[in-house]
Amino acid sequence: MFSGAQISLYPMAGNFVGIILDALRALDPYRERLRIETDDLSTLLVGPPEVLFPAMRDLFVAASSSGEHCVLHATLSRGCPGEPDDAICQTAEYGGPREPLEQRKAAALKSVGSAPVTDMQAAAQFSLYVMGTGDHMDEIYGCIDFLKQSGVFGRAKNFCTRLDGDAGAVFATIEAALCRFGPPEGHVTIDLTVSANSPTRR
Amino acid sequence: MFSGAQISLYPMAGNFVGIILDALRALDPYRERLRIETDDLSTLLVGPPEVLFPAMRDLFVAASSSGEHCVLHATLSRGCPGEPDDAICQTAEYGGPREPLEQRKAAALKSVGSAPVTDMQAAAQFSLYVMGTGDHMDEIYGCIDFLKQSGVFGRAKNFCTRLDGDAGAVFATIEAALCRFGPPEGHVTIDLTVSANSPTRR
Repeated sequence: MFSGAQISLYPMAGNFVGIILDALRALDPYRERLRIETDDLSTLLVGPPEVLFPAMRDLFVAASSSGEHCVLHATLSRGCPGEPDDAICQTAEYGGPREPLEQRKAAALKSVGSAPVTDMQAAAQFSLYVMGTGDHMDEIYGCIDFLKQSGVFGRAKNFCTRLDGDAGAVFATIEAALCRFGPPEGHVTIDLTVSANSPTRR
Repeated sequence: MFSGAQISLYPMAGNFVGIILDALRALDPYRERLRIETDDLSTLLVGPPEVLFPAMRDLFVAASSSGEHCVLHATLSRGCPGEPDDAICQTAEYGGPREPLEQRKAAALKSVGSAPVTDMQAAAQFSLYVMGTGDHMDEIYGCIDFLKQSGVFGRAKNFCTRLDGDAGAVFATIEAALCRFGPPEGHVTIDLTVSANSPTRR
């Protein structure tokens, strides 16, 4: 299994470079458990979901603590057949043989219930893509059911679902979406946008 | 068929609101052929690919002409089974019954060859997702073959492919990727990031 994300941080401020460099320190506690590569478009994080999501959350919260309008975008993937297995990605988070959808929804809700509180309000939207199966929309609708009960459901939008709430619960909810929907060994991706301090009304 | 994008524009500048508002005028020539809805996270554009991509390109070029580091992100989708048919999306761009991959690659290259030149250098990365079929990786690899011949191929990255070149050719290449790969009536999505004026080295 191979899993990770291409992430980008967009502080809408003249001092965007300084805000990004300061925020990167939030990744320090995770560096040993991630492979990290940066270019001018994004930073690659390779590692298991239980490390990836807290790392992204802490980076987002650190940048947004500047008070500036900040957006984090992530292209997340697990199980891509084109990527080699990597020991750093080893995890038990996807579970064993595919359980019934109702059990996976319950497990997803349980994990969101124990999310830490960051005191940073986040608005997010994301799309979950399940590849290589004929029943991908069943998994999507199952995930949407879970999202509606997650406590951070915002609204359905065209092509994505909106979440609003504390960044802790928002990132935990998206982690559960990636881990619990689609086959355990399947190719599942997420296109994620998380925003703080926007001056625009919802 | 339903097709469109959730797009967001991120100017990394204190005057980001002004840059966005100025750039939005670039959408004026397209407004009659698109349905447009905005909230604090993104702007929804609903319409066919031959309108969507030039509209996104002109918006991106207009914002980037400010000289500030600007990023456009788009969550693109066609054929999502969860979306209703919409007359505004009617198009012949996806072709008829699925042609052999080689013919589709040739058609993609032809359309890129006639892309207009914008004189704005763009760096992009995108992921193509083909849902609901068992052979999605064949379509992905076919698309990657096309990209390598497109004239704007940058490099393969984990989870995505990088393009570099004039914004005209870059957007035309991504349009061809969405239209020519995956079944004509299939559910195909793209997670797209396009950047200009980055102070970071590649």
